[in-house]
Amino acid sequence: MTYKAPVRDLTFILNEVLEIDRYANQPGFADVSSDLVGQILEEGAKFAEEVIAPLNRIGDQEGCKWDDGKVTGPTGWKEAYQQMVEAGWPALSALPEHGGQGMPSVVAMAFGQMTAAASAAFSMYPGLTAGAYWGLNANGSDELKAKYLPKMATGEWGGTMNLTEPQCGTDLGLIRTKAVPNGDGSYNITGQKIWISSGEHDFTDNIIHLVLARIEGAPEGIKGISLFVVPKVFVNDDGSLGERNEGVGCAGLEHKMGIHGNATCVMAYENAKGWLVGTENKGMAAMFVMMNEARLGTGLQGLSIGTAAYQAAVEFANDRLQGRSLTGAKNPDGPADSIMVHPDVRRMLLEARAIVEGGQAFILWTALQADLQHSNDGAEAQKARDYMGLITPVLKAYLTDKGFHAASLAMQVHGGSGYTEHFPASQYLRDARITMIYEGANGIQALDLVGRKLPANGGRAIMTWFADIDAFVSENGDAGETVKPFIDGLADAKKKLQEGTMWLMQNGMQNPDNAGAASTDYLHIFGLTALAYCWAQMAIAAQKQVDGGSDDPYYANKLMTGRYFVERILPDAGAHLAKMKTGAEVLMQMPTEAF
Amino acid sequence: MTYKAPVRDLTFILNEVLEIDRYANQPGFADVSSDLVGQILEEGAKFAEEVIAPLNRIGDQEGCKWDDGKVTGPTGWKEAYQQMVEAGWPALSALPEHGGQGMPSVVAMAFGQMTAAASAAFSMYPGLTAGAYWGLNANGSDELKAKYLPKMATGEWGGTMNLTEPQCGTDLGLIRTKAVPNGDGSYNITGQKIWISSGEHDFTDNIIHLVLARIEGAPEGIKGISLFVVPKVFVNDDGSLGERNEGVGCAGLEHKMGIHGNATCVMAYENAKGWLVGTENKGMAAMFVMMNEARLGTGLQGLSIGTAAYQAAVEFANDRLQGRSLTGAKNPDGPADSIMVHPDVRRMLLEARAIVEGGQAFILWTALQADLQHSNDGAEAQKARDYMGLITPVLKAYLTDKGFHAASLAMQVHGGSGYTEHFPASQYLRDARITMIYEGANGIQALDLVGRKLPANGGRAIMTWFADIDAFVSENGDAGETVKPFIDGLADAKKKLQEGTMWLMQNGMQNPDNAGAASTDYLHIFGLTALAYCWAQMAIAAQKQVDGGSDDPYYANKLMTGRYFVERILPDAGAHLAKMKTGAEVLMQMPTEAF
Repeated sequence: MTYKAPVRDLTFILNEVLEIDRYANQPGFADVSSDLVGQILEEGAKFAEEVIAPLNRIGDQEGCKWDDGKVTGPTGWKEAYQQMVEAGWPALSALPEHGGQGMPSVVAMAFGQMTAAASAAFSMYPGLTAGAYWGLNANGSDELKAKYLPKMATGEWGGTMNLTEPQCGTDLGLIRTKAVPNGDGSYNITGQKIWISSGEHDFTDNIIHLVLARIEGAPEGIKGISLFVVPKVFVNDDGSLGERNEGVGCAGLEHKMGIHGNATCVMAYENAKGWLVGTENKGMAAMFVMMNEARLGTGLQGLSIGTAAYQAAVEFANDRLQGRSLTGAKNPDGPADSIMVHPDVRRMLLEARAIVEGGQAFILWTALQADLQHSNDGAEAQKARDYMGLITPVLKAYLTDKGFHAASLAMQVHGGSGYTEHFPASQYLRDARITMIYEGANGIQALDLVGRKLPANGGRAIMTWFADIDAFVSENGDAGETVKPFIDGLADAKKKLQEGTMWLMQNGMQNPDNAGAASTDYLHIFGLTALAYCWAQMAIAAQKQVDGGSDDPYYANKLMTGRYFVERILPDAGAHLAKMKTGAEVLMQMPTEAF
Repeated sequence: MTYKAPVRDLTFILNEVLEIDRYANQPGFADVSSDLVGQILEEGAKFAEEVIAPLNRIGDQEGCKWDDGKVTGPTGWKEAYQQMVEAGWPALSALPEHGGQGMPSVVAMAFGQMTAAASAAFSMYPGLTAGAYWGLNANGSDELKAKYLPKMATGEWGGTMNLTEPQCGTDLGLIRTKAVPNGDGSYNITGQKIWISSGEHDFTDNIIHLVLARIEGAPEGIKGISLFVVPKVFVNDDGSLGERNEGVGCAGLEHKMGIHGNATCVMAYENAKGWLVGTENKGMAAMFVMMNEARLGTGLQGLSIGTAAYQAAVEFANDRLQGRSLTGAKNPDGPADSIMVHPDVRRMLLEARAIVEGGQAFILWTALQADLQHSNDGAEAQKARDYMGLITPVLKAYLTDKGFHAASLAMQVHGGSGYTEHFPASQYLRDARITMIYEGANGIQALDLVGRKLPANGGRAIMTWFADIDAFVSENGDAGETVKPFIDGLADAKKKLQEGTMWLMQNGMQNPDNAGAASTDYLHIFGLTALAYCWAQMAIAAQKQVDGGSDDPYYANKLMTGRYFVERILPDAGAHLAKMKTGAEVLMQMPTEAF
């Protein structure tokens, strides 16, 4: 199985759907032509296919090794990591002032889809560093930023996020790790953190931990949490490495169902020296910068594993000769037809593909919003910020649910072979499953959506979303017969989303449990609407080429895949709406002890 | 995590829903009182909980070991297997003439749910033996039966089914294993079989392999396949063990995502001596007896893993304190509420539970049909046989899809803990996934349903099914307000199933690809209808107790769980119907090379 980075899909979305050349006047886009992006993605694809993808299986088989606090990655991973740093990939979207290339999110999240698909576990090493980089950049003092960010930007140093403790994952108000001021501006941090991805490894000379802890005497709960930077190795004022921060250690590795190549660490802090990032007791707000970044990255990761799994399933289906077509032999000279002749095999493949290609567009559309947050046009910037708030939980949860679903379909196409570890389907399924859980389990995303994001600013974001879709639908009301079902499908999904939103307004305020009970189904209607929106935009762009006389089969295939989405995935919206409208009673009436 | 066998659920279904005491006049039921069944299940529960369940985790962690053809099971498994044989459990439903207890299927499939939930991998050792036992019993000569069946009945010897070869799983017409007559009634069998569950182990003194092979000179394809019995150790005429059948060997074990405790073997036959079972070239028909048995067993297995996973999730949810109820603290003196207060956690738990409890009833209702095949009433027997044909693929595919779904929900309830191998959620998810694949992948089941089972005898089985449901609905038309939604839900699901059936009749004949394209969605509507039927029957039985003045919370809880099924699972039927009616075009138009 050879992973093939979907450069054509990604450039189609960037150039023909989002038309990024239109944004040349936006901050960060000045030097970003579609030509340059094309070159970057071609090079990135080569790196993902040739350097990263071959690491994936060995990472699954070997995992990471812990020995007396030292963690060693799988064979070849350290070398590949260093090759990646030398090639400058981690610096792609980092800020020029830290030595980064300052590429916009649309470019970073196109490249990110390739690395996550090539090896989800490997891509988490630079991924976590990026989260920590942006978190420190948003909240740190100039001194801290100058000290750490340049080497984090390039990937020469790693970065991590330390939130979870044994007694608290979702509910960070329960954090016990404590910070005691040393009087010199530094703090001594003591406590245990678990599930710390890339927490310790031998890929880099230093690892910069961002750690949530409670300063002695701080208020209880979420309002007493502060954020600290705790380097594994101290950094001298001239930027050189000093002594080991002896209080930071990795106490062990977690044994997990998948992503074995990534070191998931138990981190022990024992009077580890750290420095406050931002303001005392405002650690949660600071952490949210990282968390939002990480949530988008997790949605991307789940979807991208689905992409790789789809490719593996296609390769298997083409090779596997078994049975005959229901409409007569298609490979009469062979012992059997390939299983590609069977409608139900194609159903599984097209379901995965329609999710994957729709998700690719959803990710890049969202990345464009991330970029437009910095627009010179104040209204455009505000709308983009509103969208980022609204869309982040949807992208994270919907794309990870569906990425896992795609990976499961890919295994099913493999039949018994897929269940053996001889084929890659098992690893994709096992790796994909974590994305539904970490960086806020998908149920938490749904609650964030209905409880926080919808009502924010009097519902401004969702109203804008509806208005944008309405405008799009009416602009394209006279689409030809190929595109029309996409527009109709979008209009119908949006109508259901609106109905669901109204239901939440009427029932969620009166009883918050109604909002909780409806949240996951509502989020799925939202995800379906978002994908319908992206598919409609792709259909228009593809049809434009067909109408212009292109006989490139790429466009016809895109339209066919999109048709699958409209006909065979979108009908789920109605079921989700019916379910959410049944309310909380059926869930809450059962006595706890009766479960 | 302690598995608790659901004796109350199973006896409720047997005694209060199916009312098995009504069948005392049926063959095999003479000595089967509800009291006796209750005692058997109590004892079986104890065995499953105390002896089998503790093996499950160690089996996952250690797996089986292969050394020069010898296979050793995980620590303690051999001893537990022998304890099971001594206690007489494998003989529960075997025929009295072979030393079995002759219990009807309803009893065997109630007990089977406990062992499969306690350890799916362990239960496959007696499970495969039972499949081989019934296959040999249905097709073997008196001599073969006398030689092998008594020791297979008790579990003293194991049994296996050897179908798959590297080049063929689903398409058994491609089998290459050959059989050469020795002139003395025996054959020499040569070929390689893969994925042979329980193919070699050290639990029993002998293993009786049933092997599909092609007699030299037989017609090509499916019409040239014969079935052979190939013992690992020859059996002397006096029943004692003779020499090792040197031509039978285990060439290796498969590395799989789950069910590690079961030895999935590559079997090498090299002039292994075997004897024909049944008629030359009629091996497929003979094998179907085993396959149908195994398919029901697989559906049961998938669902039962879901049961155990649900229990683990409830235990975790009760223990995990995190966050506060949306409607005010429920555990104000604790650091947080248990996550049971969150509607979305309850949604996941109730979804799993509604599947599990509905599936338990579906399995036992089907087991009753299996028993009624032997009814003295010819019409009743024919109807039961019709139902077994129709229902087997539905039960296999729907319950394994949903069992896996339940296991995935159970992992989600665990959050990050569930992804670590420290909790049982990962094993349940990994173990459950195979059930969707083996014994005929679920897509094959769907094709069997629409292509073979629906049209059989002019659609007699499905017409009877509709008529039975119609009669049930009209009999219960005046149900009180608690039961009415169950009856209405069933009537609506049945209407959709009928609409889907009509669509298949109109569109599947004209283009067989339409039938293939619709098959999985159709099967799911069928599964939903079957569960709706079972839930309606359970609701009536429970409500009867409530109306009779029972204040046992069991009945109220049953009704609440069923209400979840009606309100939050049944709406999927509409989406499946919409999808299936889009036909094959969207699937078949994409050129193969474009995937």
